[in-house]
Amino acid sequence: MREVVVLGVGMTRFGKHPDKGLKELGTEAIWNAVEDANIPPKDIPIIYVANAMGQQLTELRGTIAQHVVSHAGFMGMPVINVENACSGGSTALRSCILEVASGNYDVAMAVGVEKMCIADTARSAAAMAFGTILGKFGFMFVGLYAMNLRRLMEKYGLTREHFAKVVVKNTKNGALNPYAQFRQPRTMEEILNSRVVSDPLTLLMCSTMADGGAAAIVTTRDKAAKYSSKTPITIAACELVSGTPTSADAVHVPIETRASRQAYEKAGVSPEDIDVVECHDAMAPAELLIYEELGLCGEGEAGRWIDEGKTEINGVVAVNPSGGLASKGHPVSATGLAQISEIVWQLRGEAGERQVPNAKIGMTENAGGWVMDDNAACAITILKK
Amino acid sequence: MREVVVLGVGMTRFGKHPDKGLKELGTEAIWNAVEDANIPPKDIPIIYVANAMGQQLTELRGTIAQHVVSHAGFMGMPVINVENACSGGSTALRSCILEVASGNYDVAMAVGVEKMCIADTARSAAAMAFGTILGKFGFMFVGLYAMNLRRLMEKYGLTREHFAKVVVKNTKNGALNPYAQFRQPRTMEEILNSRVVSDPLTLLMCSTMADGGAAAIVTTRDKAAKYSSKTPITIAACELVSGTPTSADAVHVPIETRASRQAYEKAGVSPEDIDVVECHDAMAPAELLIYEELGLCGEGEAGRWIDEGKTEINGVVAVNPSGGLASKGHPVSATGLAQISEIVWQLRGEAGERQVPNAKIGMTENAGGWVMDDNAACAITILKK
Repeated sequence: MREVVVLGVGMTRFGKHPDKGLKELGTEAIWNAVEDANIPPKDIPIIYVANAMGQQLTELRGTIAQHVVSHAGFMGMPVINVENACSGGSTALRSCILEVASGNYDVAMAVGVEKMCIADTARSAAAMAFGTILGKFGFMFVGLYAMNLRRLMEKYGLTREHFAKVVVKNTKNGALNPYAQFRQPRTMEEILNSRVVSDPLTLLMCSTMADGGAAAIVTTRDKAAKYSSKTPITIAACELVSGTPTSADAVHVPIETRASRQAYEKAGVSPEDIDVVECHDAMAPAELLIYEELGLCGEGEAGRWIDEGKTEINGVVAVNPSGGLASKGHPVSATGLAQISEIVWQLRGEAGERQVPNAKIGMTENAGGWVMDDNAACAITILKK
Repeated sequence: MREVVVLGVGMTRFGKHPDKGLKELGTEAIWNAVEDANIPPKDIPIIYVANAMGQQLTELRGTIAQHVVSHAGFMGMPVINVENACSGGSTALRSCILEVASGNYDVAMAVGVEKMCIADTARSAAAMAFGTILGKFGFMFVGLYAMNLRRLMEKYGLTREHFAKVVVKNTKNGALNPYAQFRQPRTMEEILNSRVVSDPLTLLMCSTMADGGAAAIVTTRDKAAKYSSKTPITIAACELVSGTPTSADAVHVPIETRASRQAYEKAGVSPEDIDVVECHDAMAPAELLIYEELGLCGEGEAGRWIDEGKTEINGVVAVNPSGGLASKGHPVSATGLAQISEIVWQLRGEAGERQVPNAKIGMTENAGGWVMDDNAACAITILKK
């Protein structure tokens, strides 16, 4: 297999875009990535597009990928629609990596796009929540996350203050990110006193419905210099697994742990080698659990880690310098490629005010699917300067 | 790239299955393929599942692939949801071929599954029809096919009798296929006198909504013998393109033509080398157009071809020995892999009463997407004994 690098990335600002549909959001992300990669569009021979809810929340009923890419001006090539809930963006990227690594094509483009902010918010919520036994009883993601966090409070002595500290860190980072939906740093008091959504989660701890798109163009290390003078970012691993997510029970190894172990092995690195992580904190306090699942800290150490600022931009390993999902917004299928975009900018040294000093190795954790059954997915990508 | 073969195939009978949902249909197809391949399930390390309408017509809201494969007993591996309208099954297969050809995995399984027969048939129709300008004006697939066939009548002097002859042939074949939804041979009179749906199309010329699943397991030529004593069927080409389908206008080369030219070149064969074809005749008379698009006959010769019986099971090239979509039923994302199943059975000599004598090279044409815009997809697969 050939070494594959990220040649260019691009995204829209996440948030409410009442004037833009899937086609417009996708097109903006695609052309930002094309410009960043400095590649002639005709040199992109295959495109994967991830979308999870367009069939339910927009007027499009299928081949959404084709609708998006033809609106952006791309036609004729193989175009493939993929879905993997919140990990769809990374799933599209994984396929693009295989197309290039295998020699099937020299270039491939992955796009993730989602339109969630519609007038009927109950429909958006239903699009995410049902399809399982628990969903039928009215459980929503936030309730399941809350139950999970209650368990951590019991098990490790984590407190509401620990959870709020994650949000303080991430909103501080998000305020520095021009692509983030929310750019307002929040204080402990604001976070703890915001409306309780599902105890212990308060409003400011939760990610939002958002519209947005993100894209990444990959090629071989050899071809990269032909197009762009920017530092090509090597994809050292991109591992996808399915199964039982975050501590749905005490028996299974969560998908985040399995996928990250595979990725470390494939990339030939250890958790302590990682300089910067974008992780899937759909409810920000879940970040603490992810520290452990990715092996960044030992079991039960996450509370101390956030207390000691180890995951700040200037800490031991910067986690969510972009602001994470709760600050940046979470347009489901776009999130994975937005994470990739952030890590590429960080490793290139292009992250501006939120730059992680001397970042050489980065990681994304992009998980999706229902929180309490066996039908979830997780993709871990490790990138190197 | 390594040579990839089909190790095993399986499908459900297509038709109305009021007692079965996506999980049950998918599971039946998967286990039929596993049994046919004689492979231990643990040796299947990656699964792609195509589905187009589950989010709209069933209670599942995402990660449908995971729901299907976990119901079938598969967990933990990468599981990827793909969609490409009616060509989704072949799109899943194409990805599996790449996984194995590249050396990423030694075995991969492609599944296509669809549940369309729900109580509210208007919802099923809407799930297929909207999302484009024409759809908003109430055009359905059948109307667009009818307009297209009217054009052929003008251009080449094709008649309603030519169209009916395709159905006579295909219902005769379908009557011999235990997996077909309809197993009743039809006469010219029955076909021409059945209710007009959209002139010149009568009811018996049209494919139906159906429930069903199909699956194929691929591996390398070297590994095949380890599992099965059945003849491994080589995948000589599997080419996917997007763009403008069947004669939407007089300017573009239709996707069926582009994809088949690519496939012939990749497989190193010519149209006259093909012994058996399964083609995507969602409205049976469209088969005549497909003869030309695939280069089986020259321009304007399709009428003569059907008159002379050249595409009968014992003809020059057997087309749709399975009965085609109108006899077999057309559960959107399952169709492509049902076509693959039929060709594999034909090349192995396992097709029973509908066996094409001495079939050595087969082809599937699996097209999807809206008939009159630029957002369609077509996959052509060439298989060799």
